[in-house]
Amino acid sequence: MTPRERLVVVGGDAGGMTAAAMARRRRPEDELEIVAFERTPHTSYSACGIPYYVAGLVDDADDLVARSPSEHRARGIDVRVGHDVVAIDSQRRTVDVVADGRTRTEPYDLLLVATGAVPVRPQLPGIEATGIHGLQTLDDGLALRREVDAGPPEHAVVVGGGYIGLEVAEALVMRGAHVTVVEAAEQPMTTLDADIGARVADAMRAVGIDVRLGVHVDGFEPGPDGRVRAVVAADSTIPADVVVLGLGVRPASALAREAGIDVGVTGGIVTDPTMRTSADGVWAAGDCVEVRHRVSGEPMAIALGTYANRQGRVAGVTMTGGSATFDGVLGTAVSKICSYEVARTGLREVDARRAGFDAVTATIESTTRASYFPGSQPITVKAIADRRTGRLLGGQIFGREGAAKRIDVMAVAIWSEMTAEELASSDLSYAPPFGPVWDPVAVAARKVADL
Amino acid sequence: MTPRERLVVVGGDAGGMTAAAMARRRRPEDELEIVAFERTPHTSYSACGIPYYVAGLVDDADDLVARSPSEHRARGIDVRVGHDVVAIDSQRRTVDVVADGRTRTEPYDLLLVATGAVPVRPQLPGIEATGIHGLQTLDDGLALRREVDAGPPEHAVVVGGGYIGLEVAEALVMRGAHVTVVEAAEQPMTTLDADIGARVADAMRAVGIDVRLGVHVDGFEPGPDGRVRAVVAADSTIPADVVVLGLGVRPASALAREAGIDVGVTGGIVTDPTMRTSADGVWAAGDCVEVRHRVSGEPMAIALGTYANRQGRVAGVTMTGGSATFDGVLGTAVSKICSYEVARTGLREVDARRAGFDAVTATIESTTRASYFPGSQPITVKAIADRRTGRLLGGQIFGREGAAKRIDVMAVAIWSEMTAEELASSDLSYAPPFGPVWDPVAVAARKVADL
Repeated sequence: MTPRERLVVVGGDAGGMTAAAMARRRRPEDELEIVAFERTPHTSYSACGIPYYVAGLVDDADDLVARSPSEHRARGIDVRVGHDVVAIDSQRRTVDVVADGRTRTEPYDLLLVATGAVPVRPQLPGIEATGIHGLQTLDDGLALRREVDAGPPEHAVVVGGGYIGLEVAEALVMRGAHVTVVEAAEQPMTTLDADIGARVADAMRAVGIDVRLGVHVDGFEPGPDGRVRAVVAADSTIPADVVVLGLGVRPASALAREAGIDVGVTGGIVTDPTMRTSADGVWAAGDCVEVRHRVSGEPMAIALGTYANRQGRVAGVTMTGGSATFDGVLGTAVSKICSYEVARTGLREVDARRAGFDAVTATIESTTRASYFPGSQPITVKAIADRRTGRLLGGQIFGREGAAKRIDVMAVAIWSEMTAEELASSDLSYAPPFGPVWDPVAVAARKVADL
Repeated sequence: MTPRERLVVVGGDAGGMTAAAMARRRRPEDELEIVAFERTPHTSYSACGIPYYVAGLVDDADDLVARSPSEHRARGIDVRVGHDVVAIDSQRRTVDVVADGRTRTEPYDLLLVATGAVPVRPQLPGIEATGIHGLQTLDDGLALRREVDAGPPEHAVVVGGGYIGLEVAEALVMRGAHVTVVEAAEQPMTTLDADIGARVADAMRAVGIDVRLGVHVDGFEPGPDGRVRAVVAADSTIPADVVVLGLGVRPASALAREAGIDVGVTGGIVTDPTMRTSADGVWAAGDCVEVRHRVSGEPMAIALGTYANRQGRVAGVTMTGGSATFDGVLGTAVSKICSYEVARTGLREVDARRAGFDAVTATIESTTRASYFPGSQPITVKAIADRRTGRLLGGQIFGREGAAKRIDVMAVAIWSEMTAEELASSDLSYAPPFGPVWDPVAVAARKVADL
């Protein structure tokens, strides 16, 4: 009889708990004990849902929690919240855990590092003022919502024009605030090419957001009560009753690095496709991990719930003796701002050039339904391809309701290394309520194939 | 100098006119004369849009016309409406054309046969009664709409529960009629597996349609005024002020057959992938053509505007010396009935077995948005795969708003011969307004991959 083994999961986010749940499904409790240590009181919540909770579209924060600690426990996973793992000894196979001010050493046979990401929080003057919020954890979301519920801010400033920045800007617009988004780059959403980014900026302005591009924040001005009252930038002071930092995140890999586990140039933990790290018996999953772009081969650190879930699944399978792989990313993403939608996948034009492709692009305008059908909305599709091989490399979509989710068609085509010609010729669905007879994605693929 | 050539197009539907427009773009008027003969007064209209015109969702029939005869003429295509081609002589390269009661012989160098499809119209007793409509041509649509506008029918019967039957049933429900759909098969939409077909039947009933399955129509009962007043079936007589025949179509290939051009087992004209027929100098495109299923290899006749357009494009390119191919079909289709949506692609479970695959299927229930996000709707996804190779063979989707167009993701995956595992692992987009973190299509693919 094999002795009972012990799997320790460091971090109760989606990646960690998906791995734990998968391992539980594959190995019964008398074979495998599973303990998960989580610093916060929460597990398995949808960080992507937080802006919608702030907006008031989702009323109960519990709705964002896919599975609570007690639900995990009922399924045979010993979740211990308020437990902070501060050290890993991969030789002795132990972790040091702090809870209630006491440090204990806990043994493991298998370890999963799912430490997630930490928000970028620049050490600018005044950043400790009250009223300056992150938006990374559920607690951040609860705090911001509480404040907005107590008295809607007149002036809100969002620092950073990435996905989260835009989504929280939308939320604050919906709550009645005058919202300014300050972005250091010359466009919002730098994961888009500049031309599509410009459309997003226009959309933001159309919904009433004051968009300041190419503007660096120098600091925050607190009032006499210690509460933020303005954001200070090079050439202007922007009034602010509330500030939200949406400057992105970086992998929380310090714990792994200190344990001698390989960390890559992106700051993310290096794993093989089965999610094994460089240390024997140690796996990693989620935002703390470095991923590889499937087209360019470049290492990247991208914090996305989908990757965390998929990596968690792979780790849960492989650490219990099964076979599964995480086969890279395309950076597929979708977002909306009020009735505008935007999405991207694969390489941008600039990425494609840098990766050595002879990149050509085509952008087309079409509609989400037959042009004569009620509710038809505009859609812009940009396709990026390699002129030499015809291979589709990237896609970006901007439009209104019904536009953006079509990015998945381009993502699957890029994933399977189709040429733009093949995508243009493939058999996509058509009926007037669902699109024009020449599907917009196929039209963009055709146009770039013919270049 | 090459002498000026003459391209004759037989039929002004989407396939014919797309070919003509493509040929025009590639060869100037002093090199290539283009003449198109069309029996009706209309060209290039969206037959798929007709039900929505009947419903009153589209107010002006001209909106359904992508390009009128005069617009084609302005672009250098000599469209002659009211011209009926009655014979082809592929040896002498001439066609006989009847117009205004006179027959003329017209020469050609290149011929494109785009004769479309003819509706199935069974020779049942009473079928000549007034009030019994087809729904194939724009004139059919105009006639039905005129009648409904004049006085909405109390009882409407649609014979045939295919896509067109369902769409016109929806239209008549919207116009306030009590609608009965009579279908000889045990399910509506026989291009779906029975389990998904059953959901469509439930949806039809939910929107108030009286659905009679497994019922054969024996005839039509005219009143004393010669107008239909009932549909007669084996065990019942169904009152009807108006009847719409939605029994499908078959390829209009008689003209080609009589000219000695090869016609396949499906009744469609046989072409190679460049849309050339068996006769020198003769191409064909659109509903009159036999296509090949990309997965099973079986010949099929499927009347879909998307195929007509794509085949027309290919023919227009290849008949002017360019290179292009039509690479088969998956039978991808999408439809809605009020707020319900349905879509399919690839092989059904039964098709897959018949084609020799070791077919396995998985059906999952999910939501179109994150479950906590406002407006989230149910979606059911069925995936069909080959157990031996893991290859994805087919997909079917049923749900409500935002569900069905996701079929394109499965269509592209099947087109590029992905395994279900590859689709499940690919990088699909996620944000709470657009889907749950595990995309429903990926969940279905995962489930079938794990069987």
